[in-house]
Amino acid sequence: ASEARENGARRNLSPDAVINLDHGDPTVFESYWRKMGDNCTFIIAGYQSISYFADMKNLCWFLEPKLEEQIRRLHHVVGNAEVDDHHIVVGTGSSQLIQAALYALSPPDEREPISVVSAVPYYSSYPEVTDFLRSGLYKWAGDAQRFDKDAAYIEMVTAPNNPDGVMREPVVNRDQGTLVHDFAYYWPHYTPITCPVNHDIMLFTVSKCTGHAGSRIGWALVKDKEVARKMTKFIEINTIGVSKESQLRAAKILGVISDGCLHFGSPDADNFFEYSQRLMAERWQQMRDVVKRSEVFSLPEYPFQYCLFTGEFTEAHPAFAWIKCKETAEDCEELFRAHKILTRSGKRFGSDPKYVRVSMLNREEEFNLFLERLSAIQEISNGN
Amino acid sequence: ASEARENGARRNLSPDAVINLDHGDPTVFESYWRKMGDNCTFIIAGYQSISYFADMKNLCWFLEPKLEEQIRRLHHVVGNAEVDDHHIVVGTGSSQLIQAALYALSPPDEREPISVVSAVPYYSSYPEVTDFLRSGLYKWAGDAQRFDKDAAYIEMVTAPNNPDGVMREPVVNRDQGTLVHDFAYYWPHYTPITCPVNHDIMLFTVSKCTGHAGSRIGWALVKDKEVARKMTKFIEINTIGVSKESQLRAAKILGVISDGCLHFGSPDADNFFEYSQRLMAERWQQMRDVVKRSEVFSLPEYPFQYCLFTGEFTEAHPAFAWIKCKETAEDCEELFRAHKILTRSGKRFGSDPKYVRVSMLNREEEFNLFLERLSAIQEISNGN
Repeated sequence: ASEARENGARRNLSPDAVINLDHGDPTVFESYWRKMGDNCTFIIAGYQSISYFADMKNLCWFLEPKLEEQIRRLHHVVGNAEVDDHHIVVGTGSSQLIQAALYALSPPDEREPISVVSAVPYYSSYPEVTDFLRSGLYKWAGDAQRFDKDAAYIEMVTAPNNPDGVMREPVVNRDQGTLVHDFAYYWPHYTPITCPVNHDIMLFTVSKCTGHAGSRIGWALVKDKEVARKMTKFIEINTIGVSKESQLRAAKILGVISDGCLHFGSPDADNFFEYSQRLMAERWQQMRDVVKRSEVFSLPEYPFQYCLFTGEFTEAHPAFAWIKCKETAEDCEELFRAHKILTRSGKRFGSDPKYVRVSMLNREEEFNLFLERLSAIQEISNGN
Repeated sequence: ASEARENGARRNLSPDAVINLDHGDPTVFESYWRKMGDNCTFIIAGYQSISYFADMKNLCWFLEPKLEEQIRRLHHVVGNAEVDDHHIVVGTGSSQLIQAALYALSPPDEREPISVVSAVPYYSSYPEVTDFLRSGLYKWAGDAQRFDKDAAYIEMVTAPNNPDGVMREPVVNRDQGTLVHDFAYYWPHYTPITCPVNHDIMLFTVSKCTGHAGSRIGWALVKDKEVARKMTKFIEINTIGVSKESQLRAAKILGVISDGCLHFGSPDADNFFEYSQRLMAERWQQMRDVVKRSEVFSLPEYPFQYCLFTGEFTEAHPAFAWIKCKETAEDCEELFRAHKILTRSGKRFGSDPKYVRVSMLNREEEFNLFLERLSAIQEISNGN
């Protein structure tokens, strides 16, 4: 019980508890890490990692060499991204890296801020992260599909996309553009790995890969040395580096995952992605079963594709369900709220209020209560 | 040796090694934490602190309750700040909290950015942190002593001051001003604690208190609830909270310090501040001995004051020496660089290039080599 309090989580939910599926808090993976026991325990003595510096010889001078090693190793093991000709910049979660990328890609001496765009439905944080300081360097310009300015721009390409789980390509495709690829969800438990991606700036985060969101560790794979240097500079000014404890613990956790991948397909399933993919597939199956009986809601369909990592044809099991209210309420978020389910409205993603984004990553008890209520909404609606 | 590499530190310095005293990297305290051994070891299991959230009921929802408890306890034990009527906002170092404070204090709808000022010599990061994103909310306006605009402003009050160690008061003192008090160095090893400070926004950091700079943990004591809420919002957008590992380790370390303060004056000196004050006093004594024999350099003098914490009259032993070149070179930083000592030029602090800021917090070997070279410079100069 004290542990539940520590994590700020509710346990032993009362039947009328509010369920918060607004955030993508990845506590679903807690059960795996509990099962793994002492293998993943991180220990650090009082005198270790006191310095601001991790490796003075590295362009990203606050990046722990052990973390860099385990990031490169994991991408090699999973086969989801090319790393050999990229610099690694570590960040306090990928949020900080998004801002670092905008800073690095903005021309410093322009009178007008550069336009930042992303195709609707886009990750709801992009507008806020871009505009909260009213920067003169960059400015949110909304839906990439409607961007028609004859000027430089930065396009955020999120693949699989948050909120709707679709694999994406850039949509503006003009000479004056630079791209930031946000690959937070390009891992085998969420989506088939169809090729190792290889772009100029690729963002990843521990939060969505292993579930350790509280650690605030993300990384960028960056081809151009000057861009990597400017991103590092942003993080230097913003937070003078990134927590050493989190970096070293993340190195340990990523190492355990890579080790586990050597035993892929073993009967005890200590492979993290295998375990997590099964978990996500089960949840999606349950969810689709409930929605199928519904006249109210619908869910996106995803193609079966060959996953290079698992060697099987699978469909995506995204971290979020992008639920559409087919007929009843105009405002889907309101409908859910009336049933004590907090979701994020489609409006927040530049889209229609008929949509909501629902986290699939909560603890089991919350997910089950959510499914119960989802069924109940349908009964009520059908009864009208 | 492998540990030295981990920390990015040089050990067994060659006689012609470059000594970097530009940063205030507080590795001097490593020896204390080494001495304390297992008492300070931090352990975290793989399944702990996975969530983004630490305490949903707290205004600062990502602040670990254990850290909040130990911060309040330490201020009570040391007596350096009033905490009972303040909210606590945790940040990724105090750099992030400076930006959070500027964001929280800026009027959101003004056409012109609010002026941010600080008296010369000011902390060299203030201009860069304020202006690096060319924010429309706030703008660096330089020396507080020359600020004559009839408009709203934010004044940064650093006490003791970085770079020169002087206890400071606000200098503009006009109605339209708000103050941010940066108390990073208001701890007994650096300066006599003459009273518990009590202001609207007070910033502290683990880096300069305990030496754990790699952890990137700072905290703000904030009186006004809305200001605390806006600072929390800044950190939410910027980095979605603060590393849980670092917070929990910091809680442990601060707890060890508070425990140790119960045994103040014991013969084995396991009190952190007693140990560290002695260390700083020794270094300053050695430094003053070298400078006294010099015709080239001078150092600031600090008054003897009664310290409420130690119960003794002491002078300040600041984290930085603010060295003035009396006659020779125009550019003191260049002079030091020619002797393979990296310092920070007075120009960076809005002051004269005859000054440099020199870190007093490096490891012993580097500090000793620095003193050797400092003596040598004097001999050469005297010989001219």
